[in-house]
Amino acid sequence: MLGRLNHVAIAVPDLAAATAVYRDTLGAKVTQPQTLPEHGVTVVFIDTVNTKIELLEPLGENSPIAAFLEKNPAGGMHHICYEVDDIIVSRDRLKAAGARILGDGDPKIGAHGKPVLFLHPKDFLGTLVELEQA
Amino acid sequence: MLGRLNHVAIAVPDLAAATAVYRDTLGAKVTQPQTLPEHGVTVVFIDTVNTKIELLEPLGENSPIAAFLEKNPAGGMHHICYEVDDIIVSRDRLKAAGARILGDGDPKIGAHGKPVLFLHPKDFLGTLVELEQA
Repeated sequence: MLGRLNHVAIAVPDLAAATAVYRDTLGAKVTQPQTLPEHGVTVVFIDTVNTKIELLEPLGENSPIAAFLEKNPAGGMHHICYEVDDIIVSRDRLKAAGARILGDGDPKIGAHGKPVLFLHPKDFLGTLVELEQA
Repeated sequence: MLGRLNHVAIAVPDLAAATAVYRDTLGAKVTQPQTLPEHGVTVVFIDTVNTKIELLEPLGENSPIAAFLEKNPAGGMHHICYEVDDIIVSRDRLKAAGARILGDGDPKIGAHGKPVLFLHPKDFLGTLVELEQA
């Protein structure tokens, strides 16, 4: 079931400063910021050749990463996203295994325009896991 | 400078249980456990096609992941490892930029038999970053 690692998301309090760390200090390719109001974040992508890192800054008043940044003011790894061939088959298999899907359990359209689901960190080794339709 | 994402490491309190989550619930390929006494961990690798996940369980009394698991008893993402072409050139460039290298600043031989360094999380968005010679 588990496919490619699509991305690792790092939540940051200041996207411009975080971009400078990756672009200038680490010498990485970083895209221009995109605001995603429907996801409550502004994002840049870092190309690591085989996968990508997303740097996420909160956008708006109900950003889903606001609570994480309150607990981790300097930022930190927020979630990891794996690709799956069929997100509905994967969801049903996970539910049958007793894993909890966040929200109403139906896939939403994610930042890359594809259906995504989030899995409960308590069922996945303390790690927030996103599944994205490949 | 920044190359491939070599792996994401997830620290876990119980490697057998964590292996079951990835192998049975998520349907991933997981290797047999390897004890690495010189690194203070037992590790399994998960193949995600384009990169890998390492699940780390503490080994021995001075495991470098023990403190992390005290703070995060259910486990969590512990570090992220990027490949670099020349670890000495990268280290010197990072030091010149004011970034802190953990330990004595000299590369050690990592779990994959290649020279590695760890960078201070406070300089890298709250994320422990490992650099590995490609």
